[in-house]
Amino acid sequence: MKATLIYCAGDVRVETVPDPVINLPTDAIVRITAGCICGSDLWPFGSKEASLEGSRMGHEFVGVIQALGSEVTDLAVGDFVIAPFVASCGTCDFCLEGLQTSCRHGAHWGGTADGGQGELARVPQASGTLVRVPAGFDESLIPSLLALSDVMSTGYHAASKANIKPGQSVTVIGDGSVGLCAVISAKLLGAGRIILMGRHEARTALGQEFGATDVVAERGSEGMKKVRELTGGDGTHVVLEAVGLAPALDMAIGVVRDGGVISRVGAPQFPTVPLGFTEFMRNVTLTGGVAPARAYIDRLLPLVLNGIINPGKVFDQSISLDQVPAGYQAMADRTALKVLVRP
Amino acid sequence: MKATLIYCAGDVRVETVPDPVINLPTDAIVRITAGCICGSDLWPFGSKEASLEGSRMGHEFVGVIQALGSEVTDLAVGDFVIAPFVASCGTCDFCLEGLQTSCRHGAHWGGTADGGQGELARVPQASGTLVRVPAGFDESLIPSLLALSDVMSTGYHAASKANIKPGQSVTVIGDGSVGLCAVISAKLLGAGRIILMGRHEARTALGQEFGATDVVAERGSEGMKKVRELTGGDGTHVVLEAVGLAPALDMAIGVVRDGGVISRVGAPQFPTVPLGFTEFMRNVTLTGGVAPARAYIDRLLPLVLNGIINPGKVFDQSISLDQVPAGYQAMADRTALKVLVRP
Repeated sequence: MKATLIYCAGDVRVETVPDPVINLPTDAIVRITAGCICGSDLWPFGSKEASLEGSRMGHEFVGVIQALGSEVTDLAVGDFVIAPFVASCGTCDFCLEGLQTSCRHGAHWGGTADGGQGELARVPQASGTLVRVPAGFDESLIPSLLALSDVMSTGYHAASKANIKPGQSVTVIGDGSVGLCAVISAKLLGAGRIILMGRHEARTALGQEFGATDVVAERGSEGMKKVRELTGGDGTHVVLEAVGLAPALDMAIGVVRDGGVISRVGAPQFPTVPLGFTEFMRNVTLTGGVAPARAYIDRLLPLVLNGIINPGKVFDQSISLDQVPAGYQAMADRTALKVLVRP
Repeated sequence: MKATLIYCAGDVRVETVPDPVINLPTDAIVRITAGCICGSDLWPFGSKEASLEGSRMGHEFVGVIQALGSEVTDLAVGDFVIAPFVASCGTCDFCLEGLQTSCRHGAHWGGTADGGQGELARVPQASGTLVRVPAGFDESLIPSLLALSDVMSTGYHAASKANIKPGQSVTVIGDGSVGLCAVISAKLLGAGRIILMGRHEARTALGQEFGATDVVAERGSEGMKKVRELTGGDGTHVVLEAVGLAPALDMAIGVVRDGGVISRVGAPQFPTVPLGFTEFMRNVTLTGGVAPARAYIDRLLPLVLNGIINPGKVFDQSISLDQVPAGYQAMADRTALKVLVRP
């Protein structure tokens, strides 16, 4: 089959690799209908050191089950499934608590295993990992179903961990696909005002379509001042931080109301956070983390199938597998928001 | 009247100052029955630069109302009251949300205003600030009533912000009076295992009386290893951090379970916290902050009056006002856990 490998920063190739096979009785083989390129894929694309072997890429996909291990009895060949971005057993204490990212038997896509940017993938712990989509759905929903594998579930994790209450004010930092899905999620949880901080007009326009009531294009102290002005000087009850860079977290601290919650889902590219005495006196909470997407798909899937949410709109390019290297470049150049790959 | 002033590190004096008077119609004058010395008073006692004027000290007291401003209609002269460690109006949005430490009209004790280590104190925003204790209580309860003004409410804030659920495991870091009150609070909220980290045997013994199921005397990596061993390698669902020094927060991160909550009530003596990529992948939450004691007194007072909790046991010395300088030294030397002052 064809699959995507990265050899070093800027060097992404689509190559022929061996087809995956059932290794364990808990495995499934999925023929990928749609995968995509993630903002987090841009970290190795920007900085990976050279390696001879290359690493398999991709961790978001939907597809059709082609083969099943003998112990997987709740899925069937031919089922259309969503693969969250981490594999999980579904039975350990962490999985039962909804923290599948800390699963005691979990696994990550890519690296030396299959990724999601290819034709096929071996899925470990298939029963715990995969979510079956009821047959008969409209194919136009595929982008939104795919979004559940990562960005929509990640945005929802941010809102869920912040425990947004109806009527509360929310700032979303970042107009990437996760930030935009955080807007959808804040609205689902009943947020009143939703202030989206972002400076790419096409993206913030989509954010407004998703439910943002205000857009602040300024960054840094100017941006903080704007949000403060919009909120009577207080800042918002909740801040959803979907960037992961230190200046974004600084902004989050600058715009959160006393007693408020910063929920971060941008993987932090820094070792410490500036939550010292001042933030202690203001009772600022920092929560969030990597999203256990599997925990949220059950509740989000009906909303996609019923057209209540349409997170698939974050995909503004659709390419074939051979075009994946160009897709990385487009996302790195920010000419694409998020790229869908149809093998 | 007599009151306590600090002039520089190590220089605490009891001096005669003017009696307070009603300045505003929302004021009360309280004759202090009991005050105390706080762990936080040891920061200026250890490091304050010299000043000619001196600063008034103390922020925890109970006493009897001696005079009232004309607008204070819900209290009466002669009422026995508890003064939380921050004054608050009781009517602004923050007060109504239970975050009286961010009150829009609040005030702190001490400095140029009255403190709690004296004979009398002017209480601003008396209606919002003071909590009346129903007449007829046993005088032996005064230490526990006094504990509600700060340390017991602060320990409860830690547990409350961590949202401890019945059966969860909790580590309490610090065997000072706040840490011991955090043990009481964790037990009140139904914690299963309560591991107290502290190395002063008399204090940890009191912690066990309060509900700690395990004591870990080791610090640093040895202490973390011990807590991990006690919890099957995972750490505890909740960590209540009642110290405020960087090594204590490092320990908190080291012993918190994936998906868990660190709730801090030790005022941080550091500008940043090491919550980077690893803690993000573990979904660790940091919450807590300065405690809005006023928010908790209503629910804790009946527990004190009914003898269900007895936080006053943290006071292991009782002194007169003249002995206050020696009381500071005893707490700094750790020969006293917490010192009660009877003017």
